[in-house]
Amino acid sequence: MATTPSTSPRRLLPLSLGLFQAALLLFFTLFITYDEPSAQAEDANSVANHLYSIFPFFQDIQVMLVVGLGLLLTFLPRYGLSALTHNFLLLNFSMQWAMLLQGLLHHFHHGQVHLGLRNILTAEFAAVTVLISTGAILGRTNPCQLLVMATCEVPIYLTSEWAIITYLGVLDVGGTITIHVFSCYFGLGVSKALFRAAQQPVHPKETPTPRSDLMALVGMLILWVFWPSFVAVLCQPGDAQHRAILNTLLAMSASAVTTVVVSSLMERDGKLSPGHLQNGSLAGGVAIGAVADMAVAPVAALALGSLSAVICLLGFRFLTPLLARKLSLQDQCGIHNLHGLPGILGAAASAVAILVVPDVTAGYHFPATGGNTTEEVVMGQFGGRGAGWQALCQAMGLVGAGGGSLLAGLLTGAALRLPCLALPPQRLCFDDSLYFKVQDEAESTGMGGTSEERALAMKE
Amino acid sequence: MATTPSTSPRRLLPLSLGLFQAALLLFFTLFITYDEPSAQAEDANSVANHLYSIFPFFQDIQVMLVVGLGLLLTFLPRYGLSALTHNFLLLNFSMQWAMLLQGLLHHFHHGQVHLGLRNILTAEFAAVTVLISTGAILGRTNPCQLLVMATCEVPIYLTSEWAIITYLGVLDVGGTITIHVFSCYFGLGVSKALFRAAQQPVHPKETPTPRSDLMALVGMLILWVFWPSFVAVLCQPGDAQHRAILNTLLAMSASAVTTVVVSSLMERDGKLSPGHLQNGSLAGGVAIGAVADMAVAPVAALALGSLSAVICLLGFRFLTPLLARKLSLQDQCGIHNLHGLPGILGAAASAVAILVVPDVTAGYHFPATGGNTTEEVVMGQFGGRGAGWQALCQAMGLVGAGGGSLLAGLLTGAALRLPCLALPPQRLCFDDSLYFKVQDEAESTGMGGTSEERALAMKE
Amino acid sequence: MATTPSTSPRRLLPLSLGLFQAALLLFFTLFITYDEPSAQAEDANSVANHLYSIFPFFQDIQVMLVVGLGLLLTFLPRYGLSALTHNFLLLNFSMQWAMLLQGLLHHFHHGQVHLGLRNILTAEFAAVTVLISTGAILGRTNPCQLLVMATCEVPIYLTSEWAIITYLGVLDVGGTITIHVFSCYFGLGVSKALFRAAQQPVHPKETPTPRSDLMALVGMLILWVFWPSFVAVLCQPGDAQHRAILNTLLAMSASAVTTVVVSSLMERDGKLSPGHLQNGSLAGGVAIGAVADMAVAPVAALALGSLSAVICLLGFRFLTPLLARKLSLQDQCGIHNLHGLPGILGAAASAVAILVVPDVTAGYHFPATGGNTTEEVVMGQFGGRGAGWQALCQAMGLVGAGGGSLLAGLLTGAALRLPCLALPPQRLCFDDSLYFKVQDEAESTGMGGTSEERALAMKE
Repeated sequence: MATTPSTSPRRLLPLSLGLFQAALLLFFTLFITYDEPSAQAEDANSVANHLYSIFPFFQDIQVMLVVGLGLLLTFLPRYGLSALTHNFLLLNFSMQWAMLLQGLLHHFHHGQVHLGLRNILTAEFAAVTVLISTGAILGRTNPCQLLVMATCEVPIYLTSEWAIITYLGVLDVGGTITIHVFSCYFGLGVSKALFRAAQQPVHPKETPTPRSDLMALVGMLILWVFWPSFVAVLCQPGDAQHRAILNTLLAMSASAVTTVVVSSLMERDGKLSPGHLQNGSLAGGVAIGAVADMAVAPVAALALGSLSAVICLLGFRFLTPLLARKLSLQDQCGIHNLHGLPGILGAAASAVAILVVPDVTAGYHFPATGGNTTEEVVMGQFGGRGAGWQALCQAMGLVGAGGGSLLAGLLTGAALRLPCLALPPQRLCFDDSLYFKVQDEAESTGMGGTSEERALAMKE
Repeated sequence: MATTPSTSPRRLLPLSLGLFQAALLLFFTLFITYDEPSAQAEDANSVANHLYSIFPFFQDIQVMLVVGLGLLLTFLPRYGLSALTHNFLLLNFSMQWAMLLQGLLHHFHHGQVHLGLRNILTAEFAAVTVLISTGAILGRTNPCQLLVMATCEVPIYLTSEWAIITYLGVLDVGGTITIHVFSCYFGLGVSKALFRAAQQPVHPKETPTPRSDLMALVGMLILWVFWPSFVAVLCQPGDAQHRAILNTLLAMSASAVTTVVVSSLMERDGKLSPGHLQNGSLAGGVAIGAVADMAVAPVAALALGSLSAVICLLGFRFLTPLLARKLSLQDQCGIHNLHGLPGILGAAASAVAILVVPDVTAGYHFPATGGNTTEEVVMGQFGGRGAGWQALCQAMGLVGAGGGSLLAGLLTGAALRLPCLALPPQRLCFDDSLYFKVQDEAESTGMGGTSEERALAMKE
Repeated sequence: MATTPSTSPRRLLPLSLGLFQAALLLFFTLFITYDEPSAQAEDANSVANHLYSIFPFFQDIQVMLVVGLGLLLTFLPRYGLSALTHNFLLLNFSMQWAMLLQGLLHHFHHGQVHLGLRNILTAEFAAVTVLISTGAILGRTNPCQLLVMATCEVPIYLTSEWAIITYLGVLDVGGTITIHVFSCYFGLGVSKALFRAAQQPVHPKETPTPRSDLMALVGMLILWVFWPSFVAVLCQPGDAQHRAILNTLLAMSASAVTTVVVSSLMERDGKLSPGHLQNGSLAGGVAIGAVADMAVAPVAALALGSLSAVICLLGFRFLTPLLARKLSLQDQCGIHNLHGLPGILGAAASAVAILVVPDVTAGYHFPATGGNTTEEVVMGQFGGRGAGWQALCQAMGLVGAGGGSLLAGLLTGAALRLPCLALPPQRLCFDDSLYFKVQDEAESTGMGGTSEERALAMKE
């Protein structure tokens, strides 16, 4: 049975999480309430309709994050329980933490917070950034470190999102810049600061087996199916939302086919790499986010999907080894290839679309974000500003999201080196037995003495 | 290859099921019809809108029961096919049986039955109770016994549900009392009467492997994601339904985090137990059912979620071993910890909420159940009765559901001891090969003679 | 490590797929656009409502095809990655190809194509036929051959669908005739022409393991849950759609129970066959398609579901071995039993329903297909024609779909024998290692030298 050299972070985990839950309860007691129920039946109808227009999207996103992303991370064959569980825990913790922070902020400006499904949704988006960033350091960290990272990342994300969307007015309905680029460079920053110059050797438990690749493939397919809901949920109902769904479908379909083409061309004997499929097929969804609801031609979505799959796979083939060699940069799941490069491509595409397409925001109702839904005002393009200025804003948003998060990630990563957050020993990286009370197969064979049971354990 | 000592129940199964299908066809021929199609386009629109407001919830619930619950039960490593299949069969049989019984009852009062999605949904809720009760005796029983249990449990549930909801007027939109508490004590009663004082030894095939734990974890995650639909589907559209969704989300999120805290504290070296995660994370969904649509503060949902996870895990740690030792009570999946204890907690919470919160049913339209949807009347709190009386009703509902079902379960369990329903022999418990024509690995090795194939079978 | 004797089709694959993607981009650039955004807020509302009425169904269908069908095909234990990936690739390629063809056709008649979710949905239905046909030759073909098959099948399907639905006016809302019967006989034709008289020996890697059967069972359950969405998505909103959902639910529930009955009766010792469950439970969904939205009594749906499960399992037991022996017909997944026989039964049932039930299309708005949604006209039964004539049309549609597709399949299968599309060698059939860069377990053991790692690889 595995010895457990570092119990201190395992003691820290329940303590800190428990304290956080208590704080959350206190905060909710003081500040959070629900909307007053509507008195008129008409209002009730409108509440119901609003609910039916957002709840199916919300459920799709939950499936993506909890089941799809969780399974995608089980490509590490002996780390499946940990990957699923840490993903689930981080999602819940980060969502609660984001709700608390958002509520606090709102409270200081407007008093009592009225909780609705939309608040939970935006808090969940904050949690997504944590889940993505985790991909850079998956398997070589303990859950305490991940929680500390989440604690740092959520407020930084909320600030960054406010700066980019509300202050700069960047158009990014699917989170290409605010979520994907941000979380990618944050995660890389954390990884760099955490592992420093020590190049991590290839671990024997790191290599996927056909079976773990199959599970991860199922996770990818779940993400692939529900991605349109993720991109379109916050769109304006009507044409813009319809376009966002169609554009995402086209981009992801192009990504899927292009991934097969490129992966097959890359390998010497034309075989496919499961890892390429697991990532490349989703690249289109990352890239399309910033232009999804714009009135671009459908071909743009297809082209963006193809192109993003190409750069994603080129990233895996050339850039990741290069970064590992030159910068000793550890990127366990290749988030730079799935979220970073396609995110940059998507942001650039949004700037180009704004400059090139004359009526790119047809069907928008400005202000798009934070707007009071009851008194939406239809304004000109980009809420009144010019196309050149808007394109510049998109570029500034990209640079800000990438640069700012890299810096913040480096600082956060340094914090994760605190001695009380001891890294798991090399030998026990990528191993469920460090965090889970699991039946060790060898032990179970020894326990039951009969040959039948030994055969049974053997077959497993 | 496994010898098969008891073929008689396997002969009984197709015969009785086949007869049931024939009876169902006859009954449908005589009594069941669809609504007359609406003549006006406006009515068609309203039918369509009604459909769109219920169908997505219905599909979510189907996924929960068929895929989520099925996978959750595959934690038994050599019993996956059986667990999935028996769950699927019981769901369908019990639903059909409930439709037949409900139709018969309705027919005697109102003539021809007009079938709608809502009828199927309520029949499915009856089936859920069977699926939960099965958890107490999973793996040590044969499908014939499970069908007999379903045959008894469904009419008892329908009676109990009528008594609790329609007669007593208990508020329980998410089935905390009528479904979870009822089915838990019914299942425990069956288990007690079936296995009597014979304490069941730990079976070598009973211990989960990391792989079977992973599948069960995926099942839990699917249940976790779709639980809000289960709780909210029968709510009144509008504010009450919105609240039910939010409350369930909050409760389940709190459960998830608290489960990690408590499981980690319970184990001596701070490791997590997969079984704790698979159950504790769902406890909040069980407990929230009775108060989900009430106008309680959001903090109540969080607190209830946390607390239910705590008692669920305490139940696993202390109560289950105690019951097994003192009462020889066999509870294979720990349904008492997931459905019994959180159910009692939720029922108590609903009584407290009614007593403490002044306007707890704001946004309700009474009568909430069985009401004629076209002429709903908005009445005072609790359809006119006082808060104290209503709280008492909640308590009486809880006691009635628990006590009545325990008694009914004991009687049902005695019936399952009929000699024609022979229990599977100890040696073949928890083993798919008793019910499935599966390729025995040893046999397949013998079949193909080459070393390559033997190696292939070895690797599997 | 496996040697790879036929790299030429693996070189062909990326080239042809890449060219196709380029052609698609060109075509989209020239011809495809989105709808003009609606100027009025009212129109925006109607766009939104239309979207909410179709999008949840669409997502359900995506899950079915990508995840459910993909997993169902993983019953081949060493071919899971290939089955999932080829299914995913074929879905995307065929959908794009169908969009291109439909767009081209539309363009020549009406100019610019305005893309909407409905176009993508109909293109997806074309792709479904390819996925089904693949089942006949799964595992013994390479992806290049599958792509060539898809290239041929999609235009033939579009022609066939036009002839059957638009020209003949056949009523078939769930695709029983146009999709299931068509694709089944197309696939069988391809298989016959491809493998000719050479009876394929049973391959050692062809036999499912308990674990691969479990994954396939999960796939079946996902298909089973979402099937009602597949049948009902193109129905007229309102009563007809409501009926379609209910009928499909009833038929599939009856199929599930009847499958257990019949499978248990068929095996000598009353055990169930996982393969029977994986197919029989879905037979009702295939058969119900043509009558789903008709105003038949609910009992008809139940009876059709039961009967289709019976003939599906009888097909597996008697017809498939017979066809293999007499006609050397290879049907890897038994698509004739799941799609062919129940499809014929469903088509016959639709003719009978039309002859027997007086007002079978109550609630329809003719013309049902291709109709201009804004100016739908309510006409008499069957758009004005008599019941006898309509029933004859159903029969002609069935014969046309079956016969025409068989012929087309034979021609397509002959094309797949082209030398450049070399069949995989027997030894490497049903093996992921031919198409995927996977870690060979033996190799991994050799690579790491320590006993710990060898033990690790052993346990996997």
